[in-house]
Amino acid sequence: MVASGLIQFDDWADIYASRVETMRTSAVRDLFAAASRSDIISLSGGMPDVARLPLDKVSEVAANAVKKEGIAGLQYGDTTGREQTKEIICGLMKDNDIFVNTEDLMVTTGAQQALDLIGKTFIDAGDVIITEGPTYLGALQAFSAYQPDVHTIEFDEEGMRMDLLEAELKKLGKRKVKFIYTIPTFQNPGGVTMSLARRKRLLELAHEYEVLVIEDDPYGRLRFEGESEPCLRAMDTEVIYLGTVSKVFAPGLRTGWIIAPHPILQKIKMVKQGTDLCGSALNQVIVEHYFNDTPWKETLENINVKYRERRDAMLAALEEFFPAEAKWTHPAGGFFVWVTLPEYVDTAQMLSVALDNGVTFVPGDGCYPAGSGKGRNAMRIAFCYEEPEKIREAIRRLSVVIEERMSLYRAFIKAGVL
Amino acid sequence: MVASGLIQFDDWADIYASRVETMRTSAVRDLFAAASRSDIISLSGGMPDVARLPLDKVSEVAANAVKKEGIAGLQYGDTTGREQTKEIICGLMKDNDIFVNTEDLMVTTGAQQALDLIGKTFIDAGDVIITEGPTYLGALQAFSAYQPDVHTIEFDEEGMRMDLLEAELKKLGKRKVKFIYTIPTFQNPGGVTMSLARRKRLLELAHEYEVLVIEDDPYGRLRFEGESEPCLRAMDTEVIYLGTVSKVFAPGLRTGWIIAPHPILQKIKMVKQGTDLCGSALNQVIVEHYFNDTPWKETLENINVKYRERRDAMLAALEEFFPAEAKWTHPAGGFFVWVTLPEYVDTAQMLSVALDNGVTFVPGDGCYPAGSGKGRNAMRIAFCYEEPEKIREAIRRLSVVIEERMSLYRAFIKAGVL
Repeated sequence: MVASGLIQFDDWADIYASRVETMRTSAVRDLFAAASRSDIISLSGGMPDVARLPLDKVSEVAANAVKKEGIAGLQYGDTTGREQTKEIICGLMKDNDIFVNTEDLMVTTGAQQALDLIGKTFIDAGDVIITEGPTYLGALQAFSAYQPDVHTIEFDEEGMRMDLLEAELKKLGKRKVKFIYTIPTFQNPGGVTMSLARRKRLLELAHEYEVLVIEDDPYGRLRFEGESEPCLRAMDTEVIYLGTVSKVFAPGLRTGWIIAPHPILQKIKMVKQGTDLCGSALNQVIVEHYFNDTPWKETLENINVKYRERRDAMLAALEEFFPAEAKWTHPAGGFFVWVTLPEYVDTAQMLSVALDNGVTFVPGDGCYPAGSGKGRNAMRIAFCYEEPEKIREAIRRLSVVIEERMSLYRAFIKAGVL
Repeated sequence: MVASGLIQFDDWADIYASRVETMRTSAVRDLFAAASRSDIISLSGGMPDVARLPLDKVSEVAANAVKKEGIAGLQYGDTTGREQTKEIICGLMKDNDIFVNTEDLMVTTGAQQALDLIGKTFIDAGDVIITEGPTYLGALQAFSAYQPDVHTIEFDEEGMRMDLLEAELKKLGKRKVKFIYTIPTFQNPGGVTMSLARRKRLLELAHEYEVLVIEDDPYGRLRFEGESEPCLRAMDTEVIYLGTVSKVFAPGLRTGWIIAPHPILQKIKMVKQGTDLCGSALNQVIVEHYFNDTPWKETLENINVKYRERRDAMLAALEEFFPAEAKWTHPAGGFFVWVTLPEYVDTAQMLSVALDNGVTFVPGDGCYPAGSGKGRNAMRIAFCYEEPEKIREAIRRLSVVIEERMSLYRAFIKAGVL
C-alpha cells in the first residue's frame, strides 16, 4: 500500500478512457495558478469585473433568497431548473427579441455545462462538427471529451467567412455535420461580430445542408458602441441558443441556459439527469432575486463603461507599442482582442518569457483543435480584468518580448542561419 | 420555419449520439413531477429533510458568505474547488478515519458530477464495470453515457456477496474490469451495510485482480444504531472515495467531493475543466460558513432522530400490512428499504395503480442496468421524507395494490389460466 502523497507515477495509466489521451489541460487554467504572483498583469483570463457589483446588495439578496424561498433553495430541484429562474431568463431573452416560454429552455450550471451536454447529446467519436477557427477553448475542451472531428472556419472583421463555410459544407455533404458552433457576437477569442448578411447566409446554409446551428452568446450585452445585430435564434427558432449570467451578473453562480426545439431539449434533459440530477437551487434563487430586486441594468451599464475604457486603453497601447508586422482585431464589445504576429513567432514558446516579464496571455494554438498546428503565431489578450494603466504596461511588456523574438529572427536571417 | 412550440416530431432524431439511444429517463425523476399532487405520499425520492435545517442561521450564513468573502464567491474559481472548502472536507473525513490533505481531493457539483467524471475518465464503450445489483440508479445513468458493460453482484444483509464477486472477477480475468462501484454503507437502494469481513475481502480481491474500487458514501453519517464499519478508503488509500454534503447539510448547494490517488485526480481534473470550468464558488463559501459557524452536528443528530422514527414506522407498517410472501431489508441507517415481492409481481406495471392509490415508489428494475430484466419484482421505498403516520398510510395503500395483484394471480392459477 502506498500513501497517496508518495505516489510518484501513475499505476493506472493503462485504464483511462481513450478520450482522456486526446484531452489537454487548458493552458489558461494552468496559467491562473502561475498568475497569482502579484507583479504579474493578466491578459489571459476572461474574468468579469465582479468587484464592481454592489456587494452589500448581493449579500442582502443571498440572505433574502434563503429567508423568502425557505427550503426550496436547499432541496433537490428540477433537472431543467426552477420555473421562476426560467421566467427571469425569458425576460432577459425578450431584450434580444427572442420570445420564448419557460418550456423552451433549460437552466444549466454555467454555459460550460451546456457545451458539455451538447457534446454528450450529439457527438459520437469521429463525428464532424464545425466551429470558428480560432474558437472558445472551453468549447473545444468540452466537445473533445466526445472525440469529434473538428473542422474550423476562419473569420474576418465580419465574423465567420461564409464562402469558406459553404465550401466546407459542400465538400462534406448534406447532414454530415452534427452542428455548427458559433459565437457570432464579440467572438471568443476574436472579438469580432458577425454581420447581418453573414448571419442570414449562415442560416440559409444550415437549412440547405440540414445542419444544426449552436449560437453561444455570453458577451452580447457587453456592447460599447454601434448597433446590435439580431441573434441567430431571433432569426430562426431552430437555432440552439446558449446564454449565461456569468458576464451580466457573476460566474460564481454558475448559471447558464439552453434554448432548443422541444424534442432536442427532451434529449438534453435526459442526458442532464445522469450528469448532475439538477443544478443548484440556491444559486437559481439568488439569480432570481438579483434580477428582480436590484437595478442590474444600471450596474451592468456602469461596468460596461469600465470595459470600454479598458478596450480603448488596449487598442491605444497596441498602436503605440506593437510592431508594424502585428495585426489585431477591433472589438466593439466583449472581452478579447486577437493578435496575429509574423508567422515565425511561436506564442506558446513565448509564454514563459512573457511570464518572466510579468504578463500573461493565451497562446493562439489553444484556440484551435489539438494537433491542428494552427494559431501558433497568434494570441488572445483580454482587456476585461485589469485597469487601463495596467493594460498599457502589460502591452508594453509584451511588445518587448515580441520585439526580442523578432530581432533574434532578423539576426538569424542576416547570419544566414535561417 | 416551424415555431418551436408547434414541433410535433423530432426532426433531428437521426443526429443524436449513439449513447442517447441506450439512455432512459429516470422513472424517479419523472415521478417527482407526477408526485406533486398533494394527496400523494412519496416513498420514491431520496430527499433529505431540509425543512429541519435552521433556516434563519442558513440565511445568515448566506449573507455572511458574500459579506465576508467578498467577490471570491462571485468570480470563477479553481477547477478542483476552493482551498478552504477542501479544508472543511478534510475535517469531515477525519471523523471517518480518512486522513487526507487538500491536495488529495477535488470538490464536485454534488456527488452526481463525481460519478459523471469517473465515467468520463475511465469508461470506453464496452468496458466492463462492476456494481452491486441493485445499485444507485443515478450512478447507472451517469455511467451509461459512456456505454459500459455493467456486471452486477447481488447483496445480502452483509452487503455485496464476495463469493459472487470473486467468481465474476475470475471469469473476467485480471485488469479486465475498469472499476468496482460500491455503496458499502446503507446502500442505495438496499439499505444494507457491508460487514467488516466483506470489506477486507473486497480490498483483497481488488488488489489480486488489479481493479480500482470506488466507494460512494452519501449516507455514512446517517446511522441510527450499532457501530460504524470503517470506510474502505480508511482501510486502503488506493480506493476512490465519493462524498457529499447533500445528506448532512443540503442538496441545493450541489457540493460533493472525490478523494483519489494523485495521478488519477490529475486526470479527473483535466476532464472536469471541459465539463464545467469550475463549480460554484458561492456555494462553496456557504458550505464553509455552514460547517464553521453553525452547530451542524447537533442539527444532524436531531434530523437523524426523525429519520430513525420514520424507519421504525416503515418497518412496523411493513410487518403489519405486507403479505407473508414479501421480504425486505432492515437498514440501520440511510434512507431506503428494498422490498422483494413474489416473482410474478411486476412493480413497474404496478406503479400507475399505486399512483392512483396515492403512493409512489421506485420500481426495482430501474436499479439495474437497462435491459437486464432484473429487479422487476422488487421496489425501493424511502423513509426519509414523510412523517411516520404518512409512511404507515403509504405502506397500507401499497399493500392493497400488492394484495390485488396477488389475488389476481391466485385467481388465474385457480382458473388454470397460468
